[in-house]
Amino acid sequence: MIEAEIITEEHSFAERWFNVRRQGRLLVFGADPSEALLRRWGLSVDAAGIDTFIDIVLDAIPENVGVIKPQSAFFEARGWQGMRSLERLIREARAMGALVLLDAKRGDIGSTADAYGSAYLGTAAPLQVDAITVAPYLGLDALTPMIHRAAASGSAVFVVARSSNPEGRALQTATLAEGVSVENALLRDIGRMNEAYGLGTVNAVVGVHTPPLRDEVLRSSNALFLCPGFGAQGTTAVDIATAFRSLTDRVLPTASRSLLDAGPDPKALADRWATLNEELAVALASV
Amino acid sequence: MIEAEIITEEHSFAERWFNVRRQGRLLVFGADPSEALLRRWGLSVDAAGIDTFIDIVLDAIPENVGVIKPQSAFFEARGWQGMRSLERLIREARAMGALVLLDAKRGDIGSTADAYGSAYLGTAAPLQVDAITVAPYLGLDALTPMIHRAAASGSAVFVVARSSNPEGRALQTATLAEGVSVENALLRDIGRMNEAYGLGTVNAVVGVHTPPLRDEVLRSSNALFLCPGFGAQGTTAVDIATAFRSLTDRVLPTASRSLLDAGPDPKALADRWATLNEELAVALASV
Repeated sequence: MIEAEIITEEHSFAERWFNVRRQGRLLVFGADPSEALLRRWGLSVDAAGIDTFIDIVLDAIPENVGVIKPQSAFFEARGWQGMRSLERLIREARAMGALVLLDAKRGDIGSTADAYGSAYLGTAAPLQVDAITVAPYLGLDALTPMIHRAAASGSAVFVVARSSNPEGRALQTATLAEGVSVENALLRDIGRMNEAYGLGTVNAVVGVHTPPLRDEVLRSSNALFLCPGFGAQGTTAVDIATAFRSLTDRVLPTASRSLLDAGPDPKALADRWATLNEELAVALASV
Repeated sequence: MIEAEIITEEHSFAERWFNVRRQGRLLVFGADPSEALLRRWGLSVDAAGIDTFIDIVLDAIPENVGVIKPQSAFFEARGWQGMRSLERLIREARAMGALVLLDAKRGDIGSTADAYGSAYLGTAAPLQVDAITVAPYLGLDALTPMIHRAAASGSAVFVVARSSNPEGRALQTATLAEGVSVENALLRDIGRMNEAYGLGTVNAVVGVHTPPLRDEVLRSSNALFLCPGFGAQGTTAVDIATAFRSLTDRVLPTASRSLLDAGPDPKALADRWATLNEELAVALASV
């Protein structure tokens, strides 16, 4: 393993990701305490169960994991106590040096978008994360207040462009009046925003579908790509390598269920992470 | 004012809305404790300020207001303490007999969509509301787990179809492979879902734009319509009447800033609500 540079928040999210990646830490750890998972691990389906889940995850990640991705829904499902637990997970994981990418798919307009930014981005945010996922149905430009906050604080947003599920295909491949598909136009417009902000302030969630996005479409975004569903959703390491080809260094592949199934023993979780991470490293290096 | 029927949660959300409407209580009260609003009301920008905001709103609404719409972002911006305050607002407003429609624009797939449902819909939900707004970028069908929970608990979802802001127009008017626009297809598909669930389980957020949606498109949804931005966003009562024509009884017009500007005196807030509500009643009755 390569010695890490000393990386602080003075660096952009993209710089921090590339540093993590240079150390071979590719796989994003999806921290999803669903009701089914809590039961499978023998935990109570309440905030106390979530807290034990967090303790286990924090035990499993320090050796290797570069990025951890909690899914907000599973914490919200436990009410404000769940949100308090989420705050703790975010704070402690970041204190250990992991980057936290919150999967929340927030999105709104004007002062509301700004409020979401103030909740999650920047040092004054009560749930300060390194990056957050956002949804663009109200238009990418409507998210500008969040994006400004990301740019000002060295954090990032990941805009869902091509989601991993089949139900999203019809809308995401619809044709805009200008003749471009919704997902391709989003990636291009993300690229325009990054001209001002630099690579990797505005990023994209890009799931694997056939046919893959063209190289020039991916490149137009000047973005990093969060690729969900490695393992349990049926996406293999080779699928990811095939989908992103010459841009695999920009991909953040995530696993949740295929990883958490190895728990609740922290050592078993860490081992599963290492196995899946190695599988990815081999596949991504081969293209 | 017409005497209210005794309406319990045995009734569907649509039945409860129509009951409120028969009493002439048209205007949805947008409870948006933004940082700017807290400052304007002389409150601290923290959870204590939010709690005072809630006390004032709860003082202002009992006489008249039928539906209250808190915007989740402004509570999340205060961290878990803000979410605890939101839980209190929801619980106390519902105990007073108001319907609570949470503006959260959540949206995800599979077990994550189900977790959002379990957070906000049904008697076991820690933040149980009468209805919640959702975003469809991942596909309407991906939201099925939330919709099932709404149908099973007499609550409702409001899918953003036509948002009130200009930045959303390009995506929402894009053309699907089948030749229909994104927003029109959503309204039609909502109607298909309501064939199973009944009018008003799956509803739509429909802002005012020119040209308005055609009557048959609105009707195809078999839905209620949340219409944002009455007042401050420039939408007048006449605009709303013109946009929804023969379906004005299905419209939930919402005001936030134009209403909250009258605060922080609860009596002044209640008076402003009554004035705006009367303006709406006159305009909607005239079409």
